[in-house]
Order: sequence, then C-alpha cells, then structure tokens
Amino acid sequence: MPLTLDAALADVAAEIDRQFDQLLAIPDDPRADLYRAMRHAAIGGGKRLRPLLVFATANLFDVARECSARAATALEAIHVYSLIHDDLPSMDNDDMRRGKPTVHKMFDEATAILAGDCLHALAFEVLADPATHADPFVRIELVLDLARAAGPNGMAGGQIMDIEAETTRFDLNTVTRLQQMKTGALISASVEAGAILGRLPPEGRVGLRGYAHDLGLAFQIADDLLDAEGDEAVAGKKLRKDEVAGKETFLSLLGPERAREQARMLVDQAIAHLHSYGKEADLLRDIARFVLERDR
Amino acid sequence: MPLTLDAALADVAAEIDRQFDQLLAIPDDPRADLYRAMRHAAIGGGKRLRPLLVFATANLFDVARECSARAATALEAIHVYSLIHDDLPSMDNDDMRRGKPTVHKMFDEATAILAGDCLHALAFEVLADPATHADPFVRIELVLDLARAAGPNGMAGGQIMDIEAETTRFDLNTVTRLQQMKTGALISASVEAGAILGRLPPEGRVGLRGYAHDLGLAFQIADDLLDAEGDEAVAGKKLRKDEVAGKETFLSLLGPERAREQARMLVDQAIAHLHSYGKEADLLRDIARFVLERDR
Repeated sequence: MPLTLDAALADVAAEIDRQFDQLLAIPDDPRADLYRAMRHAAIGGGKRLRPLLVFATANLFDVARECSARAATALEAIHVYSLIHDDLPSMDNDDMRRGKPTVHKMFDEATAILAGDCLHALAFEVLADPATHADPFVRIELVLDLARAAGPNGMAGGQIMDIEAETTRFDLNTVTRLQQMKTGALISASVEAGAILGRLPPEGRVGLRGYAHDLGLAFQIADDLLDAEGDEAVAGKKLRKDEVAGKETFLSLLGPERAREQARMLVDQAIAHLHSYGKEADLLRDIARFVLERDR
Repeated sequence: MPLTLDAALADVAAEIDRQFDQLLAIPDDPRADLYRAMRHAAIGGGKRLRPLLVFATANLFDVARECSARAATALEAIHVYSLIHDDLPSMDNDDMRRGKPTVHKMFDEATAILAGDCLHALAFEVLADPATHADPFVRIELVLDLARAAGPNGMAGGQIMDIEAETTRFDLNTVTRLQQMKTGALISASVEAGAILGRLPPEGRVGLRGYAHDLGLAFQIADDLLDAEGDEAVAGKKLRKDEVAGKETFLSLLGPERAREQARMLVDQAIAHLHSYGKEADLLRDIARFVLERDR
C-alpha cells in the first residue's frame, strides 16, 4: 500500500474494481441483466473514499491486504447500493451518477431496486465469509459494525430524515444529526472496520472514532459546497439540488464563509485526534485534507 | 413451545409480533414514519412460516427460546422487506398485502423503499448481536446462511428471474430453479438457522436440508394453486396474477391435476427426509402437511 494520497487513491480504485469484477461475474442465466446493473453501478467510478479509509486504518496495524480488500469491498457495496436506491424516481430522481446514466435509467426501476438489494446482501455475505478473516470474532464484529451503520440508526435513517428535510425546517442540531447518520455512519464504519481488522480493542479506538466523526462532518460540508459551487461535468452528477429542493443544509444555515471555516476546523480537529500515531497515519491525515479540496 | 400446529402457529405469531414491537419502537424524531411503515408491514399478519420453521427445527435440539426468537425475527425481517419491495409499483404493483394496504399505498414509495432497506439491515444486526447467541461461530454462521439466501443467488436472484418470466418462456427446469431461489432459499435458510442454533454439524444436516428443499417446492406449487383458485378476501391480497401476467408456473406447465399430485408427493418426500427423528419432529411433519392445506 503506497503512502502518498494520489497513489493510494489509484491503488484502492483498482483493487475495488478487481474485487467487484470477481464478485459480480455475469452468470449465463436470466439474472445476467441484474449482474450487469450491479457492475454498472459498482465498477469504474467514485472516489472510493470508504474503501480508502478501511485500507488506511487497517494499515496502521499491518492487516493483510486480502482482509482489508474484502472489508473495503463490503463497505463500498453498501455505499453503492444506497446510491442506486437514492437515485430512484421516487427518491432523488437522478439521471446521472459518476458521469454515467443511473441504474434505473440504464436498465429499469425494478432492476435498480433489486440490484441495490443484492449489493446490500452481498456486503454481509462478503464480511461473513471466512475468506475475509479466519477469526469469527473479527467477522461478526465487522458485520455488526456495518449493519448498524447501514440501518435505521445510520445511513437509511439519515436518508429518511433527508427526505423530511425537504418539507420541514430543521435547525443546525437536527441537520448535524441527519448528516452524521446519512454519510457519517458509513465513514465511521469504514474506519472502525480497519480498527476491528487490526484487533484494536474498543478502548483504544477513541482517537480513530474522533477522527472519523469530524471527517464525516467535514466531508458533508464540502459536499454542500460542491453542490452549490461545483462543476456538473467534473462532479459527474446533477448539482444545485439542495437549493432547488429548499432544503436546510450546513451551507444554508451557516452561509458559505462560515461553512468553509467550519469544515477547515473539523479537518484540523480530525487530524488532531490522530496525535498518538506517527508517520504511519499520514495517509489518514492526507485523506482529511483531501476531503476539503475535492471537486467531485 | 407447544407441539400442535395450531397452537404453535398462534404462539409463534405472538412471539414475532412481540419481537418486532420491541425492535421497532417508534422514535420521537423525523424517522417516526419510517418506523410506522416498518411496523405496518412487520406486525400483525402473515403465516410466519419461516419463523415457525426456525422454532420447530431449533426445538429438535433444545435451543433456548430467546435464541430461536431472535433468529426467527431476522428471517421474517428479510421476508417482510422482500414483500415491501416486491409490492412496489415498478415491481408487482400490489395495493393489498395481508389484508391491509401495501406500504407504498399507506405511506409513499420512498418510505417503502427505505423501510425495506432498514428491515434488511436490521435482520443482520439482530443476528450479529451477542444477544442472539453467545458463541460468535454460531452468529457468523447464521449471518452467512441468511446473506446467501437473501442475495443474488437466493431470494433476490429468484425475484429478477420471476420478472424475466413475464416476457420469456421458461421450461420446467428453469421454473423449478427460479422457485428454489425465490421462495425456497429463505425456507431452507430458516430450517438451516434452527440446525445452526442447535449446533448440528453440516454432515448431520442432510435430512433437514432435504426436508426444507421439498417443502419449499411444495409451498410454491400450493402458492400457484392458491393464486389460481383461492379467495382474495381470505388470502388478503390480489390473486390470478400469474395468469394475467402470462407467466409460466408449475401450474401452467403441469396443469392443476399433476401440480396437486406433485405437491402431495413433495410433502411425502419432505416427511420421509425426517425418518431419523422421532416424535420431536412431529411439528415439522405437520408444517409440511399444512403447506398444502392453507388458504392464504
């Protein structure tokens, strides 16, 4: 695992594509389109931020690359399934994602729903498989970590709050909680997965959890700024959506100046949480800075 | 756990309602409707066949009731999520289920999609929780069993084949494979969960697996017959759907006489697979007979 951010991003992207390519080999039966739909969404796109966090955290503890790769693939599978479902006409109704047509546009709604459902189940199958880790204690902890982050107290719960936000005026506390669930939970679960693989006991995870928490919020503020100020061609998806939906966000509540300042402070705080780690955590520090600078 | 079928059905139905009632306590925040939607689908309805199979199998090995109840709830959560998604307008477009409006009718499509997604994640959270079983070997085996049964090689894969069946003429082999995936996989996973909880080693599960396999097919043929000949008011859902969709089923391929005969043979075969068990397996035998006689 190379330690510079650009090399790590490229390396993780290639590894995740390879993992999905193997996991989603197209069967010679009536399920072929289902697999094509999963591959369309899962392969060749995205920043792979969550897998990168799994690798960067696991590497602090010299975890075997195969173990990290499988856990990282499971985390990304949950993220990809959530994007497929979020893009559906009855949800965000998006036509473009990662510079390509969304799954329901490329295939149809039924295929998109089932492709999401399949990636959801596959994520848990990948984690529970002995190939991910020989020790069942490690595997069951990974499953519990991901199931909590994906469900009603995590990502999916945040998603329903996000829909509510279109018709209800939320205050800053509620928006913060919404975002911690919607995007923060899976970002935290990625760092946690690296710590679980590294057999770090829960009492030793305080610094990494603080890092993940602040990183998740900084990421979301950067996402709000990108939605308001970014270039659709670079982002590969529709932008200015929050404003059109009339949704309260960090940006609408704080304004661009304070939002940017808040994100910078969160990135500094995230890095400060890593004080007990040396050079081996430089990639995690670089990821925190990258989150602010990204353009897609 | 009472051993007569009627008492067991009532007992399991009450237990599963109790489990979902606790699991799905409505939070005092913007997720309230999401929880109401999950409760609407999960509580107070259905035959609870899969939970009953978990209990009946686990009881062969004197598994603690709390363990069986949690595993049974996870199996039913997956079943309920699949019903919510199958009923969606872009899938089967059903208005009624278990005698009540479907979730997207009672709430809306976005809530239905997310309620399904949440029950999906909750199923794995319930299984992975130490409260289900102290031994992580048992829990991780339950997770792997359920993830495989729910994903593209099980229920969700069968569902996409079922959609394909509306536009492609399938032969009896393909219909059999489709049904083994669509409904058989979760029925088999329920029996398997009971065996896993009972710490029966895989080499000792041959009889139970044979039972579950034949029961799953008999169940599906009975379902086809119910769709063609049943009473919508009793079934609590729309019937005559296969005929309208022009879908090949066991019934369309075999005709009613041979289909009924085939189902009876499968039930006899299922019971024959239990030959190494005594009276303690009478409930499993009764369940096999019940599958043919049910009217909903």
